Amino acid sequence: MTPDQMTRSADRVATLRTLMTAKNLHGFVIPRADEHQSEYVPPYAERLAWLTGFTGSAGMAIVLVDRAAIFTDGRYMIQIGNQIDSSVFEVRHIINEPLSGWLREALNAGCSLAYDPWLHTEEGVKKLRTACEAVGAALVPVDENLVDRIWEDQPPRPIGAIEPHPIEFSGEASADKRTRIARLLVDDGIDAAVLTLSDSIAWLLNIRGSDVPRTPSPLSFAILYADATVDLFAAPSKLNDSVKVHFGDSVAVAAPEAFAPTVSSLTGRTVLADPANVADRIFQLLTDAGAVINRQADPCQLPKACKNEVELMGAREAHLRDGVALTRFLAWLAREASKGKIDEIGAADRLEQFRRESDLLRDLSFDTISGAGPNGAIVHYRVTPETNRKLETGSLYLVDSGGQYPDGTTDVTRTIAIGPPTAEMQQHFTLVLKGHIALGSAYFPVGTTGSQVDVLARRALWEKGLDYDHGTGHGVGSYLGVHEGPQRISKTPDSVALKPGMIVSNEPGYYRTGKYGIRIENLVAVREVEIEGAEKLMLGFETLTLAPIDRALIDIDLLADPERTWVDDYHAMVRNKIGPLVDVETRMWLDQATAPL
Amino acid sequence: MTPDQMTRSADRVATLRTLMTAKNLHGFVIPRADEHQSEYVPPYAERLAWLTGFTGSAGMAIVLVDRAAIFTDGRYMIQIGNQIDSSVFEVRHIINEPLSGWLREALNAGCSLAYDPWLHTEEGVKKLRTACEAVGAALVPVDENLVDRIWEDQPPRPIGAIEPHPIEFSGEASADKRTRIARLLVDDGIDAAVLTLSDSIAWLLNIRGSDVPRTPSPLSFAILYADATVDLFAAPSKLNDSVKVHFGDSVAVAAPEAFAPTVSSLTGRTVLADPANVADRIFQLLTDAGAVINRQADPCQLPKACKNEVELMGAREAHLRDGVALTRFLAWLAREASKGKIDEIGAADRLEQFRRESDLLRDLSFDTISGAGPNGAIVHYRVTPETNRKLETGSLYLVDSGGQYPDGTTDVTRTIAIGPPTAEMQQHFTLVLKGHIALGSAYFPVGTTGSQVDVLARRALWEKGLDYDHGTGHGVGSYLGVHEGPQRISKTPDSVALKPGMIVSNEPGYYRTGKYGIRIENLVAVREVEIEGAEKLMLGFETLTLAPIDRALIDIDLLADPERTWVDDYHAMVRNKIGPLVDVETRMWLDQATAPL
Repeated sequence: MTPDQMTRSADRVATLRTLMTAKNLHGFVIPRADEHQSEYVPPYAERLAWLTGFTGSAGMAIVLVDRAAIFTDGRYMIQIGNQIDSSVFEVRHIINEPLSGWLREALNAGCSLAYDPWLHTEEGVKKLRTACEAVGAALVPVDENLVDRIWEDQPPRPIGAIEPHPIEFSGEASADKRTRIARLLVDDGIDAAVLTLSDSIAWLLNIRGSDVPRTPSPLSFAILYADATVDLFAAPSKLNDSVKVHFGDSVAVAAPEAFAPTVSSLTGRTVLADPANVADRIFQLLTDAGAVINRQADPCQLPKACKNEVELMGAREAHLRDGVALTRFLAWLAREASKGKIDEIGAADRLEQFRRESDLLRDLSFDTISGAGPNGAIVHYRVTPETNRKLETGSLYLVDSGGQYPDGTTDVTRTIAIGPPTAEMQQHFTLVLKGHIALGSAYFPVGTTGSQVDVLARRALWEKGLDYDHGTGHGVGSYLGVHEGPQRISKTPDSVALKPGMIVSNEPGYYRTGKYGIRIENLVAVREVEIEGAEKLMLGFETLTLAPIDRALIDIDLLADPERTWVDDYHAMVRNKIGPLVDVETRMWLDQATAPL
Repeated sequence: MTPDQMTRSADRVATLRTLMTAKNLHGFVIPRADEHQSEYVPPYAERLAWLTGFTGSAGMAIVLVDRAAIFTDGRYMIQIGNQIDSSVFEVRHIINEPLSGWLREALNAGCSLAYDPWLHTEEGVKKLRTACEAVGAALVPVDENLVDRIWEDQPPRPIGAIEPHPIEFSGEASADKRTRIARLLVDDGIDAAVLTLSDSIAWLLNIRGSDVPRTPSPLSFAILYADATVDLFAAPSKLNDSVKVHFGDSVAVAAPEAFAPTVSSLTGRTVLADPANVADRIFQLLTDAGAVINRQADPCQLPKACKNEVELMGAREAHLRDGVALTRFLAWLAREASKGKIDEIGAADRLEQFRRESDLLRDLSFDTISGAGPNGAIVHYRVTPETNRKLETGSLYLVDSGGQYPDGTTDVTRTIAIGPPTAEMQQHFTLVLKGHIALGSAYFPVGTTGSQVDVLARRALWEKGLDYDHGTGHGVGSYLGVHEGPQRISKTPDSVALKPGMIVSNEPGYYRTGKYGIRIENLVAVREVEIEGAEKLMLGFETLTLAPIDRALIDIDLLADPERTWVDDYHAMVRNKIGPLVDVETRMWLDQATAPL
């Protein structure tokens, strides 16, 4: 942080404190969040970054009249130290030093801690309130965000155009989706469901937008009624005539300002709202209106996650296209990397260029992770000019990247040896590969959750006393968020079963701090499998991602026969599908890169 | 059910209804439970069996003025049909047809459904109350159990003698246990903890009893205070002088009748009570007394589950002794079974006799499951004279049994081929064995839960489209309950980590209905493992159970090399440890039974 930036942050906090004092408040909570609990938040919602300088994707600051703290997780502990003014903010690890402990220290009985109820979910507020009440302090909502009051050049709300997501990609008309979700509401005696997750609304209405980078879901609010009609709340300037035609009569559009009054008009109605992601403000409005609140999961999330056959076909097409780009990149890297002139930024740019040559790329699906040598060991690494490293002989290069195509979203990680790898690198890579294969080739009965199968990806590492500190897999949208719920594959106990049509990543890794990082990631789709003599309906994974896995990093002696067969079969599939679509030079490299072990 | 029994049940229900009507109640709930939520309940608490005829270990009846239903789970659906009078009780599957649905049908608005608040946990009452309130009915506690009022010859409360559990078996003095649990209370600002789980109290005070069969934990209540003193509530006649000396000054004993008044005297104190197992009545008393209720897990359960070195040493001794008995039984079976004269009851009796010959057996740890042929496929089978089958050539015999010894509790299952098995039996047995080995030989990092590793025991079966519908492992006490929490290994999401010293069963199975059942169960203890190059503290399992696994049922071709080595190593250990302790004839059989594959 430059002295200039430090002064700015300190000044802003001082201004905020003046405002707080004027309002007789003892503190204010600033989460890194928007009204939709988006992963990518638009510039106007970067209040945490504006106030503190911290730009990580997860964090929360609490500014009290006399103290202030900023909380983030292990991924960002180093970055946050470089970005914030430590004379203003105490830095806390949100898992190891939870909010409640700091509030117990810093808050006094009788204090009022304020929060913006649009930026916190009901569940989040419950936790904050419990922590406040433990010390006799009050947690109070404010009508206007205090940061907005003092942020003079706060960017406007984005007004990215909304476009219809055509039936050839969605595979199900919005009217049909609305009818089937409305039927769920009717079955539960529910009159309306409040939807605030932008990907739920995008899925339900078959629309895509351009409000935030990397994710095509338009920021909006919606209410789905039991008669299958929808009120959509989005800036009118986002919608052109084609969208209005697409909506027809059953979707009424109003300005975002009309959302709260409409919620308040639901007096006496039974209204579904998801306490895990709907803003606390909505619950207040519903309560004040005398609505009966039915707390349950957003009814669009599970149906959205289970892709239909058209979406799966699209995913296969998108992965073929993406695999061509990635294979061309890998062939280029094989030719050029040993010359010692490629750096992380250059590699990421080249990969993006290959993807853009497909013409159908709408955006990357996230900022490419391009990590050479020790940078590969930083799990959520984002290259900057300051950290940019050359790809050096004898090192590993990890590249995690993906694209947004109209027919599907991709996400793939490959780890490549630059020059001959060490035996240790090979051993670690092969352990990760064994985990990837064990999960990717698993069969499991209907009802099995991601947390049940997570261990399959870790077992080979565990046998050597190794592990990785991240989840094994996340859900992936269909030209939507590259991270989507409700399914995931991780150690965290979870009760969401893996269902046919769900797309998840399979991405075990191993990270040797200061030396190298290894991750092998394919996207896979859950599907039914036929097994002779089976007594239960069994599920398994169809691999979508198509790109060679670096053979130079595989220690064949560590693979059991079926694992070796898996690699050879996978490589044969990649060769057969990608080979005909690439130039001769790439094809020649691909033939070698996918030769049987 | 005989006509006589049917009349009795109908008469009793009629009497209950008369009483309900006199009290202006519309219904009464009769769970199969005592005040301690015991697995084995004493005869006086068998109200469900007395009223309905149903003797299963899990169930609940609801008698309304005009209808009555009885609920149990899948294990007992056949048995319940044979035991109850279906003209009086509708039978419901408690998972597929939950209580709430039946109550919605059967209860009317304004009705009062009564329950005995000593027999339901607070969590259980919450569910019942939600179901009642959904139809506008009230759930009301009664001061006296209505069944007790009409059960004329209800057995008295058991008064089994309480004896000290000596330090050479417990490994930690009660004073030390009380001090360390009290320290946890002080850290949380808690003044007292109400304990009603009999195994918690037995562990904390180092006492054992004889109130119920199969489990040596004396039925009692206790309050542990932050100063490490305890009030124990147990019938004075249960305690002799040696126990009083054992208790010293810090444990005060009072009659069970003093428990409720003592709870009511905790006005203004912060009191821990576990909503998952403490009776709803206690929460009412604490609330009425103006105590501050701190709801969290019983603080003795986790420490109890983590056995100390003395307890682990005892477990090894107990398993050696138990392994001798089981090996003698298996050798006897190998000699005798082919003669076609052994039946399930005879086999179970012979096994018990071998165990009793050790002199140290205090009791079986549960009723032996002795299942021949198709009876082996009934997971919770208990042989009766009516179901008793001969062990026939060409069939499988499954025997699940255990003993209570002063130094440890055992639980072991072996499946034995009577005569030559079919290839299909071998295949299924070997798949189960592969799961048993995969789990038993797994290494996992500190923090790993049972639900995370459960899949290891199922994976080989899943690959063939097979599975088993029960958990993979349960906690086992140290001369206490053969089923104990908080740890377990199952599909159910769980957040209790496996910790060093915990004893759990490893018991995958496969059941072909109408033909045979297969289960292989060893007890294992969680312990730290040393792995060269490990980056994390890793845990693994030490196998405690010592008895041959039937080699005739192993299809060697289905085993990978490390699996084959596991079997040979296990058998070598069994031979080396058990061999010197058995008669020559058994030893000769053992040498063959444990020869390398």
